Amino acid sequence: MPIVVGFIPTKEGRAALDRAVEEAQLRNERLIVVSSNKGGENFSRDVVQFDDELEKVTKDLEARGIEFDVHGLVRGNEPAEDLVEIAEKQNATLIVIGLRRRSPVGKLLMGSNAQRILLDANCDVLAVKPN
Amino acid sequence: MPIVVGFIPTKEGRAALDRAVEEAQLRNERLIVVSSNKGGENFSRDVVQFDDELEKVTKDLEARGIEFDVHGLVRGNEPAEDLVEIAEKQNATLIVIGLRRRSPVGKLLMGSNAQRILLDANCDVLAVKPN
Repeated sequence: MPIVVGFIPTKEGRAALDRAVEEAQLRNERLIVVSSNKGGENFSRDVVQFDDELEKVTKDLEARGIEFDVHGLVRGNEPAEDLVEIAEKQNATLIVIGLRRRSPVGKLLMGSNAQRILLDANCDVLAVKPN
Repeated sequence: MPIVVGFIPTKEGRAALDRAVEEAQLRNERLIVVSSNKGGENFSRDVVQFDDELEKVTKDLEARGIEFDVHGLVRGNEPAEDLVEIAEKQNATLIVIGLRRRSPVGKLLMGSNAQRILLDANCDVLAVKPN
């Protein structure tokens, strides 16, 4: 049963992807990369960069020789909804997400997407921080 | 580098322990079970049950044939503090915690211990739900 990872082009998103690849290799499972963009007014400006990023991810995963799918979704959903829905449909055993590090001084609250995924996912969730 | 699991005698705590055992076997790592109780006024009433539970856990882990330690801590800390501190001292690669399922109607917020562990841990955190 596959592993689902939420990808965004930030250091947190890349950390989640790297770790998800390791988990997929360790468990010998297929990896499903979900890049969910809510869309909306300013979306067309970002769409080229978004496509470029997913192409880079695809090439990187091909080079690593694992079985994978990449889903780029733009359908007005919050990323949490897309991730949880795909994980359920695909019977995933694990969702991997990136979390921001709390700053030494700041009281960082958990992002609403991370919190929703952790609470709503039927499967286990691995929360990864960038190095 | 070991895997740290927070244990409490609830279905969430047991789910976390079971999953942590699987992860320790998969990665061939030592498991550190941390059972942290803040203590305080009513603690003496619970202490016998608390010891019994940890003894059961110890026997169960011995039967499964994995390398492990059990730490029963009562030093006035929140469980989150104890877990994060031990994970850091032991250079853990992973902390496993149990999370409650969100009820279909209820808006369950994440417990403060879970949220603190997720935000404060230096290592990855695997959040597990009971079946």
